[in-house]
Amino acid sequence: MIIINFKTYSEATGQRAVELARKAEKVKRETDASIGVAPQFADISSVAAAVDIPVFAQHVDPIKPGGFTGHVLADSVKEAGAVGTLINHSERQLRLSDIEGIVRLTREKKLLSCVCANNPSISAAVASLEPDILAIEPPELIGTGIPVSKAKPEVITDTVRLVRKANSKVTILCGAGISHGEDVVAALKLGTQGVLVASGIVKAKDPYTIIREFADASRT
Amino acid sequence: MIIINFKTYSEATGQRAVELARKAEKVKRETDASIGVAPQFADISSVAAAVDIPVFAQHVDPIKPGGFTGHVLADSVKEAGAVGTLINHSERQLRLSDIEGIVRLTREKKLLSCVCANNPSISAAVASLEPDILAIEPPELIGTGIPVSKAKPEVITDTVRLVRKANSKVTILCGAGISHGEDVVAALKLGTQGVLVASGIVKAKDPYTIIREFADASRT
Amino acid sequence: MIIINFKTYSEATGQRAVELARKAEKVKRETDASIGVAPQFADISSVAAAVDIPVFAQHVDPIKPGGFTGHVLADSVKEAGAVGTLINHSERQLRLSDIEGIVRLTREKKLLSCVCANNPSISAAVASLEPDILAIEPPELIGTGIPVSKAKPEVITDTVRLVRKANSKVTILCGAGISHGEDVVAALKLGTQGVLVASGIVKAKDPYTIIREFADASRT
Amino acid sequence: MIIINFKTYSEATGQRAVELARKAEKVKRETDASIGVAPQFADISSVAAAVDIPVFAQHVDPIKPGGFTGHVLADSVKEAGAVGTLINHSERQLRLSDIEGIVRLTREKKLLSCVCANNPSISAAVASLEPDILAIEPPELIGTGIPVSKAKPEVITDTVRLVRKANSKVTILCGAGISHGEDVVAALKLGTQGVLVASGIVKAKDPYTIIREFADASRT
Repeated sequence: MIIINFKTYSEATGQRAVELARKAEKVKRETDASIGVAPQFADISSVAAAVDIPVFAQHVDPIKPGGFTGHVLADSVKEAGAVGTLINHSERQLRLSDIEGIVRLTREKKLLSCVCANNPSISAAVASLEPDILAIEPPELIGTGIPVSKAKPEVITDTVRLVRKANSKVTILCGAGISHGEDVVAALKLGTQGVLVASGIVKAKDPYTIIREFADASRT
Repeated sequence: MIIINFKTYSEATGQRAVELARKAEKVKRETDASIGVAPQFADISSVAAAVDIPVFAQHVDPIKPGGFTGHVLADSVKEAGAVGTLINHSERQLRLSDIEGIVRLTREKKLLSCVCANNPSISAAVASLEPDILAIEPPELIGTGIPVSKAKPEVITDTVRLVRKANSKVTILCGAGISHGEDVVAALKLGTQGVLVASGIVKAKDPYTIIREFADASRT
Repeated sequence: MIIINFKTYSEATGQRAVELARKAEKVKRETDASIGVAPQFADISSVAAAVDIPVFAQHVDPIKPGGFTGHVLADSVKEAGAVGTLINHSERQLRLSDIEGIVRLTREKKLLSCVCANNPSISAAVASLEPDILAIEPPELIGTGIPVSKAKPEVITDTVRLVRKANSKVTILCGAGISHGEDVVAALKLGTQGVLVASGIVKAKDPYTIIREFADASRT
Repeated sequence: MIIINFKTYSEATGQRAVELARKAEKVKRETDASIGVAPQFADISSVAAAVDIPVFAQHVDPIKPGGFTGHVLADSVKEAGAVGTLINHSERQLRLSDIEGIVRLTREKKLLSCVCANNPSISAAVASLEPDILAIEPPELIGTGIPVSKAKPEVITDTVRLVRKANSKVTILCGAGISHGEDVVAALKLGTQGVLVASGIVKAKDPYTIIREFADASRT
């Protein structure tokens, strides 16, 4: 599984978000790899209307409909076309009770939950909340191009070991610095089921080629 | 000026956001009153595509394009069709330095800024940041149906007085509990230039009639 | 084990914090029950100087010495006499990564960690971080005088069950609404090792009598 | 006026906070300069007991006595011996409504308020809240040793100009990078009434000498 986080990069905002999602969809059609995209809130509806791959929100708030100006309602991103959401990305970290509340909320709303964690110990805590997907991303490697699977393989293996003690079902992704197909291969060998990737694809000169490289690697 | 804040009410989410915005646009065409709407982030693009009245975001973050997963980029809401944004709503209060940074950012991006304030003293502080619009809303009256213009007229008159000392140009709105045309008339008589309204319209049985009542009142 | 949280109650501020701690110490001497107190930051040094029972901070920040104006440094509360700290109380909730960081920090600094949790699922997540003490407190019962051990015994039994799956060593306390000795007895019967209590003692007419009642109950 | 912010530096924690405050008091006795110190919460009572110069808290929360575990109550720091508090330091930035609430609270409690601001525009907003003291500190210079009075004199002159339009009474301090007596002289020439200083004194090899230099400079 590959989830592409568009963050708030200008290369993946507005019309460019739609174009990037189309490239991901093309690779999905060619390879049948599992690929999702996580555009900004305001781009969810146009991206979801344009492509037939899973669209994730980057965050939702632990709220029900009501008076919460400026917050992100799960129903809203779902109606716009999202099928899931990132939760607790290292750039949008949350209180433990909110992570728990949002995971519960996504379950009620039939949205996929992908909770991010910074290290093995946090991953173990997250695992016991039973999200659908857990993404381990050491924040110090995010955006560096230094792949976690090479620089800190023990972070991944420790995470897999601790998470599996508590939870045999959760899909484990890893992220941070993933830029080449070989990084994806390494991540899978270390026991994960895929990658969460951002700048490695969004800021690539030719995103299609990199997505394709990732997809091929994820199926070896 | 009337700005309708859709908050995260289910009555104004997704397709219902578009329908409500269409009612506001109908009144605008009939009366030529100045009416804007502030839907949720994920609804900005569909609302902006459907209607020809100003669309505001409910919040933007003080960020430039980059690695800010789960945040709201000004460029993103602008490309989706927003012409301005609410800032510091009492349900989404911000650090002073962030309010200042966002007002500056909206100026750069040619977006209208509507900064909310809870009381006259805070309004005076906001006024010196020179936003385009300032909305005074005593939080204890929000959603009560008790109009600030009747329950606490001195909050409005004190705000107008303090704000005008520092700033002669900012448009002053008032909000909280505004539900009838007469509340709008009262708000204007107290020295404001309009209202920021939410449940009074969004949760009304017949929103079109109330918007029309507000629009007529705002032009007397 | 009984930990008395002084919160920011005026009955337990300044000189009254010292007096209340002395009552707890008296009961400790009389009964040999394990009793700790958690006064406000500014009262730690005078309380720790006055009594010979464990003193906890109510919070510490996940920081090392440096430029963190207005934050709470672990070294500072330790030098003032604290032997441990509450973490993530429902009135001071923290990001998951900060809870993890603070637990790690307390371990380095040889301070006891008492992490609070709102429900069984959050308790399970906390347990995997391996704090010394875990306190389950349903926030909706805090300050009500309705004891969790009577109103929601399943919250406690579920917590004990989930926590023990991950962690056999952590001391489990329960809190919220604990006001009588019988509530302590009930809490112990449900599988906890003691209570975290605040208003039940701090706001009691005769705190000494209640502390004594709790201590006797904790030793039955 | 000179306020020395001890931050959470290890050089100014616990017993070393008391020693540093004694040096400041010595200079005060020798020169009669106005010097205050802002130690960590847990050190307020021992510092205030040891010296006869004004002691400030580094922060207080906008709360009344009650259930606010882990927060900082104004009554608590006052009873411990503080006569005022820093508010909104750039390392502990606050919501606008909280700054306003805390300034109001300090007025009720007869505590001095020293509100920090990052730039001239924010200073103008702060000035309208009528604190006793306003400290302008460009955060990018904090801890650098590059004095704001030399590197960005226009930040200070713009601040003085904007603040004085709204408020003729507030004491204006400047901070960031202040390390030598000449920096203090420059700050006064630019229209301020003193300095807020931290590492320049706390991390100096011989703090007494630097404090004395500052005090002499502040009286030229």
